[in-house]
Amino acid sequence: MSSGSKKRIKISPPLLISGSFFVLIVIGTILLKLPLATTAPISWTDALFVATSATTVTGLSVFDPGTVLTGFGEGVLLVLIQFGGIGLMTFAVAILMMFKKKIGIQNRLYLQEAFSQNTFGGIIRLVKYILLFVFSVEAIGIVLLTAYWIPDYGVKESLHLSIFHVISAFNNAGFSLFPDNLMSHQTDPLVLFLLSALFIIGGIGFTVVVDLFQKKTFRQWSLHTKLMVIGTLVLNLFATIIVFFLEHDNPETIGGMSLFEQLFASYFTGVTPRTAGFNVVDYSVMEDPTLLFTMILMFIGGGSASTASGIKLTTFIVVVLATVSFLRSEREPEIFGRSIRLEITLRSLAITTISVLTVWLFIFLLTISETIPFLPLAFEVVSAFGTVGLSMGVTGQLSDLGEVMLCILMFIGRVGPLTLFFLLLKKKKQHFRYPYDQVFTG
Amino acid sequence: MSSGSKKRIKISPPLLISGSFFVLIVIGTILLKLPLATTAPISWTDALFVATSATTVTGLSVFDPGTVLTGFGEGVLLVLIQFGGIGLMTFAVAILMMFKKKIGIQNRLYLQEAFSQNTFGGIIRLVKYILLFVFSVEAIGIVLLTAYWIPDYGVKESLHLSIFHVISAFNNAGFSLFPDNLMSHQTDPLVLFLLSALFIIGGIGFTVVVDLFQKKTFRQWSLHTKLMVIGTLVLNLFATIIVFFLEHDNPETIGGMSLFEQLFASYFTGVTPRTAGFNVVDYSVMEDPTLLFTMILMFIGGGSASTASGIKLTTFIVVVLATVSFLRSEREPEIFGRSIRLEITLRSLAITTISVLTVWLFIFLLTISETIPFLPLAFEVVSAFGTVGLSMGVTGQLSDLGEVMLCILMFIGRVGPLTLFFLLLKKKKQHFRYPYDQVFTG
Ligand SMILES: [K+]
Ligand SMILES: [K+]
Repeated sequence: MSSGSKKRIKISPPLLISGSFFVLIVIGTILLKLPLATTAPISWTDALFVATSATTVTGLSVFDPGTVLTGFGEGVLLVLIQFGGIGLMTFAVAILMMFKKKIGIQNRLYLQEAFSQNTFGGIIRLVKYILLFVFSVEAIGIVLLTAYWIPDYGVKESLHLSIFHVISAFNNAGFSLFPDNLMSHQTDPLVLFLLSALFIIGGIGFTVVVDLFQKKTFRQWSLHTKLMVIGTLVLNLFATIIVFFLEHDNPETIGGMSLFEQLFASYFTGVTPRTAGFNVVDYSVMEDPTLLFTMILMFIGGGSASTASGIKLTTFIVVVLATVSFLRSEREPEIFGRSIRLEITLRSLAITTISVLTVWLFIFLLTISETIPFLPLAFEVVSAFGTVGLSMGVTGQLSDLGEVMLCILMFIGRVGPLTLFFLLLKKKKQHFRYPYDQVFTG
Repeated sequence: MSSGSKKRIKISPPLLISGSFFVLIVIGTILLKLPLATTAPISWTDALFVATSATTVTGLSVFDPGTVLTGFGEGVLLVLIQFGGIGLMTFAVAILMMFKKKIGIQNRLYLQEAFSQNTFGGIIRLVKYILLFVFSVEAIGIVLLTAYWIPDYGVKESLHLSIFHVISAFNNAGFSLFPDNLMSHQTDPLVLFLLSALFIIGGIGFTVVVDLFQKKTFRQWSLHTKLMVIGTLVLNLFATIIVFFLEHDNPETIGGMSLFEQLFASYFTGVTPRTAGFNVVDYSVMEDPTLLFTMILMFIGGGSASTASGIKLTTFIVVVLATVSFLRSEREPEIFGRSIRLEITLRSLAITTISVLTVWLFIFLLTISETIPFLPLAFEVVSAFGTVGLSMGVTGQLSDLGEVMLCILMFIGRVGPLTLFFLLLKKKKQHFRYPYDQVFTG
């Protein structure tokens, strides 16, 4: 017989990642459907929707979590958010480490895929850093927020609210126990600052955090870290200015605030779309250009290997750099004295193309299945794809079919469209190249 | 002194193409503003808008051409359409040939850019073919349509209507002398078939036509011709089915027709968005999914070096093939036993990226300047970019600023965003490569 008979069935990293998320969603759905999870019965579809929304750290909800969920239900939600946010794979390795099992080459490869790391070495150490980092940051956040909220809510409720909102923020989930999300805190700069600091740190990417810890000067940073840090600063500043410019005279959002409150609410509204999804203004009365701008931010998202989703900020930057370098007849994009490899450019373009087509397809399908007006529906779809959770208020009006379709989209958005497509398309081993022929384009 | 002092100022092909279109639009604006061009005075903005719409073969209009334009005005419109459609450069060479001037290498290069041809040889012959072909097809169309319309309109008016609609159709302009465009002919299959045949032939690209004339079997066709012919057939069939599926139970569009009429109206509504822009149904009462699907078709457009615009069908096909080949870990896209060069892939991705960002930017700007609801406005912007001319009926509601912005967009859409960006960005001569560094994406 040929050597093929010796092959063992191996589970590929994309399958492991997708599979683990799928299992987590199924378990979450069952737990949320239990009578002890909610104060009033919910449908299986609604349980599936909220379990998916939590696991994919989206934050869209067909009911108000603060009133419908019991303490047990809230606990389930938080566990789903925490696992979904910092990643099942981290926990898988953490558990392995606790049991002092030796991590084989297969698991390392698996982690490598999960964190997009290039080298084997240091991956185990990276995971230790991640867990230490996540729980340190969350602990600091909980202490600070609890202390701040004690005068308003008392010790017990303050701790309760802080744990929920800090975990929701760090993991970019955007779930809130307040019925209006954070609108009642729209002029409370300390809460907004603390929560936005948490979701920006959580969403910038673990590899960036490790780099920042290990290397002290800008020159030492990797290109990825430079792009993420500078890109985040520039985009957040730009978004703040745009939101302020477009909404400062809208009395239904920030028009009635003082200038300082307007600027701070603009800042929060500019940074929250890149996956966090908390809202301090009512998106159903926002200006059309602001909504359109927000949709772009939701599509771009945060950092790779982070609690954020979207196509990722670096993907967007590489696509723009590649287009500019093409127009300047350069071979490869260059920035900060470094060149970007062709494979990275092609990968970024593939991610963007698949994502645009996916979002378009789901808007198309939902305009067929739903009777919701176009803009709120398109906004909802982009929000689900970017696992953002912002909404113009139509989540509760979705049909069962619409809810299931958004569940699929949140799953695709969190696992990453490339991961899923790698599963579906069989790789081809190429032995020769066909002759070239010209195609005229554009 | 260095050899640099010997350099002469040369006009680059992108500048020549943009410049000639710009001059044509200015002349057209002045002529349409003349009192003898219209039955009632029009504003400079409206004259600019319609001159731009005609030159870029868009077909959007802020007034009804059939009632507002005099015979002279109609003539101006037709000349602008004919020049804009088959290209100023073709005419420029034709005029040179009539004067028996020798065509220098500069002019040949100029034409090369205009027709995206790879080789110098045969370009002059190609231009002869084009003119022969255009006027033959238009003459046949005019004879057939005049003969068909004589019973309804009499000889003189039938000839008048036929000349206008045939030139408008072949050049994918979509202007009509009927106040409801072609809606009153929605159940007249012969008119619809003839006009759609004209705009499909005009929009498939001159290089394809030449290939079809010169090579008799499928195997002999170039890859470009194969992609265009198969792509056009598949996309037109697919679009017909989608439109029929989405609209057959919509009483305000095709719901009240017989099955045959429904199928034929679906066919026409499926093929007209790829630049022609004639309409047989009222787009303001169309279903949202059909409108969204139509927007994608308008964005894709027709063939390169044709009377059609959009990013071009081949650009779209290459982007899809490149994405699939990336997912299958192939080096280069392959189809019909041919490989597609990396530069063509990168060019297609650059065109698509710039086009998506341009369309998005103009929708954003128009949501700021206009008070028109989101979907009709987005539809209008995509229609202007693709120089299609379909509208949900909001063209007349645009502000002056909105009209000017759409003029700029029609210009970009017709000249091609790459052409303009090549003008703006200075090419960089690269002497060394920076070291590579990793960027994590997606
Ligand atoms: K979120
Ligand atoms: K047109």
